Amino acid sequence: KIDGQRLWDSLMEMAKIGPGIAGGNNRQTLTDEDAEGRRLFQRWCEAEGLTIGVDQMGTMFARREGTDPDALPVYVGSHLDTQPTGGKYDGVLGVLGGLEVIRTLNRLGIKTRHPIVVTNWTNEEGTRFAPAMLASGVFAGVIDQDWAYAREDAKGVRFGDELARIGFKGDEPVGARKMKAFFELHIEQGPILEEEGIDIGVVTHGQGLRWIQCTVTGKESHTGSTPMRMRRNAGRGLAQITELVHEIAMKHQPNAVGAIGHIDVYPNSRNIIPGKVVFTIDFRSHVLPTLEAMVAELMDKAPRLCADLGLEFSSEIVGQFDPPAFDEGCVGAIRDAAERLGYSHMNIVSGAGHDACWINRVAPTAMVMCPCVDGLSHNEAEEITPEWAEKGANVLFHAVVETAEI
Amino acid sequence: KIDGQRLWDSLMEMAKIGPGIAGGNNRQTLTDEDAEGRRLFQRWCEAEGLTIGVDQMGTMFARREGTDPDALPVYVGSHLDTQPTGGKYDGVLGVLGGLEVIRTLNRLGIKTRHPIVVTNWTNEEGTRFAPAMLASGVFAGVIDQDWAYAREDAKGVRFGDELARIGFKGDEPVGARKMKAFFELHIEQGPILEEEGIDIGVVTHGQGLRWIQCTVTGKESHTGSTPMRMRRNAGRGLAQITELVHEIAMKHQPNAVGAIGHIDVYPNSRNIIPGKVVFTIDFRSHVLPTLEAMVAELMDKAPRLCADLGLEFSSEIVGQFDPPAFDEGCVGAIRDAAERLGYSHMNIVSGAGHDACWINRVAPTAMVMCPCVDGLSHNEAEEITPEWAEKGANVLFHAVVETAEI
Ligand SMILES: NC(=O)NCCC(=O)O
Ligand SMILES: NC(=O)NCCC(=O)O
Repeated sequence: KIDGQRLWDSLMEMAKIGPGIAGGNNRQTLTDEDAEGRRLFQRWCEAEGLTIGVDQMGTMFARREGTDPDALPVYVGSHLDTQPTGGKYDGVLGVLGGLEVIRTLNRLGIKTRHPIVVTNWTNEEGTRFAPAMLASGVFAGVIDQDWAYAREDAKGVRFGDELARIGFKGDEPVGARKMKAFFELHIEQGPILEEEGIDIGVVTHGQGLRWIQCTVTGKESHTGSTPMRMRRNAGRGLAQITELVHEIAMKHQPNAVGAIGHIDVYPNSRNIIPGKVVFTIDFRSHVLPTLEAMVAELMDKAPRLCADLGLEFSSEIVGQFDPPAFDEGCVGAIRDAAERLGYSHMNIVSGAGHDACWINRVAPTAMVMCPCVDGLSHNEAEEITPEWAEKGANVLFHAVVETAEI
Repeated sequence: KIDGQRLWDSLMEMAKIGPGIAGGNNRQTLTDEDAEGRRLFQRWCEAEGLTIGVDQMGTMFARREGTDPDALPVYVGSHLDTQPTGGKYDGVLGVLGGLEVIRTLNRLGIKTRHPIVVTNWTNEEGTRFAPAMLASGVFAGVIDQDWAYAREDAKGVRFGDELARIGFKGDEPVGARKMKAFFELHIEQGPILEEEGIDIGVVTHGQGLRWIQCTVTGKESHTGSTPMRMRRNAGRGLAQITELVHEIAMKHQPNAVGAIGHIDVYPNSRNIIPGKVVFTIDFRSHVLPTLEAMVAELMDKAPRLCADLGLEFSSEIVGQFDPPAFDEGCVGAIRDAAERLGYSHMNIVSGAGHDACWINRVAPTAMVMCPCVDGLSHNEAEEITPEWAEKGANVLFHAVVETAEI
């Protein structure tokens, strides 16, 4: 069994880097804080005798050798970057859970046939540079590397330039590594496990996602002296599409969700009617036809609704993936581990996207989830108990070691 | 008569300072560009032999002496600051129109009994520091000077500090000056004069205004893994209040207008359900009971509508004035001038707020308006013809000189 206290202490140590304003973290990808978090992880890995590789997307791979030089490695990990107002566990638990697997093996002096590699994927969150899961997407061959380098943050700074600036633009070609399997431990980020009183979520599927960035264009004009009949208020397009997105998602509940999280209003002055609003719709479902039906309904209705308001509508998909079904063998290894440890468990669908969703395309992959308080995530108040973390990491340990073969 | 070409050349010269991105201007109050515009105005005034005073709110007063040392001065002016994406005429025409009155008197060698003072009021636009018409509000005794100094822009910079930084924090106590009258020439910023084919708007009234800054609070959470039933999406509060504001204004059309121009979403991330949205409603009417009824309806419905969405609603008035009725004598002077010059004219209500609306409380005041193309203002494409500008300035000249007595 892993050492729950050691894992918890490491989580708290990492949380000191890039503190938020309300007890959580702001350690967005490729910031100085992200670099500091990466260096701490690197020191911990080196202390365990692991060798670090960094690929051209900045993803870190910390390798423990196996006994068979020809055996493919088993990968385990998640991400260390956070939302601007994120929690201490989203992603971090998966990386430090992987490190805890290594620490436990080292303390017990256990050798595995297959090497084990702990991974920190770059830019999982996608807030600073859209889309999310950028580096794992390039690794899986679904996102073009040059396109990824050209992603810009809100200040117009490019992903590729920031990667070089923080010193984590490695030499290794992205996606060159072959994996026996990939395992990711993550907090659920939803309420189901806690509500059901279950320790372990065995993730069988994930939700697919579409991020639709919309631009609604009207005409900037004076709020006081422009008669109501002459207004082309882009804010009304945003308002009606906000409600449309909600209605569409409600229609497919509980198999779908939808909301608008990002909104920029131009020129954003109290006495100017908005001439332009740019915003991003986030639609998800684990049922592909449902996801496609939601997008189709939006694409059908939004332009007409805007036309009725004298507005123009245009849109662009800025992030997408189809619902993944995880590898039966790997999912089985997680279920067996929970069973063997005597933990309560249930099958679950991942509500969020994860690096595992992309890696699933190029390697046998599965995820294990632990509960989180009130289902809250992407919030500084995100919380889990040390016991939940310990049980999740124990399941991860058993699944990884079983797959890596003693 | 004034020199239309000279006036136009000065307008074009001023427009070179703080150019926008689409042919207009970005010369927001207390920026380096504003300071440069002020210095150009000062040089032009000094070239005409005027003496410059600056008060503690940074308002500039350029004085031409009269023949009677005991006579109260006639004031004329407007503002040189612009919106972030503003036009070349909003405010500027009134200041440079006042300067043109002086230049014309100087060229003709005409002396007036009363001194004439050309004025550039600080922060009329209110975009960078809310509310609008800040310095004229302090002058009129309706806004507290220390409160004005403490206004902060979006970056948290204080009005008082910026005023000192750009070198325009004068010594003169604000509001100490007594006026015989105040005249302001301004573009209409609405479509009526152009649609009616009329040269001159004789402004009899203005609209009253309420700026209601609203905060809608929900709960930040993950867009993917938070079930629809658990969401408290502050963006939906914004959406429904946007439509409510529009409905309320439509109910009172054509005597009222309403819109939301300023919106900030927190934390504004594609995969976080908005936990908080802050936005400002702009309601206006020239009928006070209508204005009050609009605010009352909003204050009644918005909190309930938010409660139904699981959201909290709070609000604060960040700008307000009641509908002004201008001085009959001064309004008459403008109407007489237009009549004498043979220009077509009509009575009109000002849709926008103006410094004249505040000064009207402490001195006999009136405004003259000229048409603008398509009623467009607070937009870089704001446009007027040289003829409109010339006719407006001629009316201003005659009204000012008649009031200042030859
Ligand atoms: N796990 C997680 O929050 N990933 C970010 C991508 C997403 O929005 O699902
Ligand atoms: N004239 C003008 O645009 N003033 C700004 C204050 C207002 O919003 O009416």
